[in-house]
Amino acid sequence: MNAQATGPGSPRGCFITLEGGEGTGKSTQAKRLSAWLREHGLSVVTTREPGGSPGAESIRELLVTGDAGRWDALTETLLHFAARRDHLVKTIRPALARGDWVVSDRFADSTMAYQGFGHGLGPDPVETLGRLVLDGVQPDLTLILDLPVPEGLARAGARFEQDGGDEHRYESMDAAFHERLRKGFHAIAAGEPQRCILIEASGGIEDVAAAIRKAVKEKLGRFMP
Amino acid sequence: MNAQATGPGSPRGCFITLEGGEGTGKSTQAKRLSAWLREHGLSVVTTREPGGSPGAESIRELLVTGDAGRWDALTETLLHFAARRDHLVKTIRPALARGDWVVSDRFADSTMAYQGFGHGLGPDPVETLGRLVLDGVQPDLTLILDLPVPEGLARAGARFEQDGGDEHRYESMDAAFHERLRKGFHAIAAGEPQRCILIEASGGIEDVAAAIRKAVKEKLGRFMP
Repeated sequence: MNAQATGPGSPRGCFITLEGGEGTGKSTQAKRLSAWLREHGLSVVTTREPGGSPGAESIRELLVTGDAGRWDALTETLLHFAARRDHLVKTIRPALARGDWVVSDRFADSTMAYQGFGHGLGPDPVETLGRLVLDGVQPDLTLILDLPVPEGLARAGARFEQDGGDEHRYESMDAAFHERLRKGFHAIAAGEPQRCILIEASGGIEDVAAAIRKAVKEKLGRFMP
Repeated sequence: MNAQATGPGSPRGCFITLEGGEGTGKSTQAKRLSAWLREHGLSVVTTREPGGSPGAESIRELLVTGDAGRWDALTETLLHFAARRDHLVKTIRPALARGDWVVSDRFADSTMAYQGFGHGLGPDPVETLGRLVLDGVQPDLTLILDLPVPEGLARAGARFEQDGGDEHRYESMDAAFHERLRKGFHAIAAGEPQRCILIEASGGIEDVAAAIRKAVKEKLGRFMP
């Protein structure tokens, strides 16, 4: 089931997620995409995970700071789904019900890639939790930003040098982790081609933004004014 | 499956949980029981939920403070199971593996009673999460302290007057919630009589402690020196 039950052709809010590893440019592109959708007269909520609601942001603290080995993979998965449930109930669902579009920097695919693939938890617990927690809500479109791991980590490292902060728990995991996670995103894209589009993200910001706009027009243009 | 797979008669650590509503005296009785077990020469870990490990204690903060309506029932359940997973992995399982006894003030039955019954989430999500998260670990004995709701809330209120603190999110829920929760504990006790014993908790501290010692001797005396 997609985010809302209204059929194709009727104007309604769409739910778009951006996914990908560290340094692939998701937050930059989420902002660009939201601005472009607003230029089309749409009301857009730009949000992110973990976080996106006051409660989920307080859970985020526990996930993005501290040692890489702070949580076992299943504990971490449960925390992500707790934050996601709050985000869904307090932010995403109310926005879609108002007819707004929602652009989220990360959603459930990140948990499948990071914990299911990266940490080796496997797909089953992540799928079980998805069924339990999401009430059938799925993105209408998921854009997976894809970048070779060394390039992504270099970008994320440069951002950290520039901006500082203590949100680098995932970036601090080893290169093999990031390779497994990239493979995870490839597997997700291959498994759900009707929902997911892999976007080559090594180009400049403007090239990637253009590829994203093209994908959104193709998949969701019928819902745009 | 019980906490450890060794058969009856062999010395091993046992896992005992104390359950019940607000003001039933669980923490006081957990300390008393632990002291008594130590007098028998046992090594005992006294712990509590939500909490019982550094990670789980940081999740506890999100659960016991703030407004009563801070989380929806499912988000809250996920947070409890995230904390429980950390508690299990970092504290309970290592203790039992060393041969220690573990006495925990609350465990999974609290989530069934509070969220499943009290908040009306129903038993299914709580059971699904239990299967996913607990790796089959169950208490060897669960002591459910039972008290009429007005009496428990009066005791909890008096404790709050005396000690202060900001951990009164659950106590602040309405009387109907606490009645549903008490019914939940009764249903759990009735459903698993081989594991659970209902302890009448309106007597004095010493009377309740004696009833608890009697139950532990009967159920687990064969594992005591």
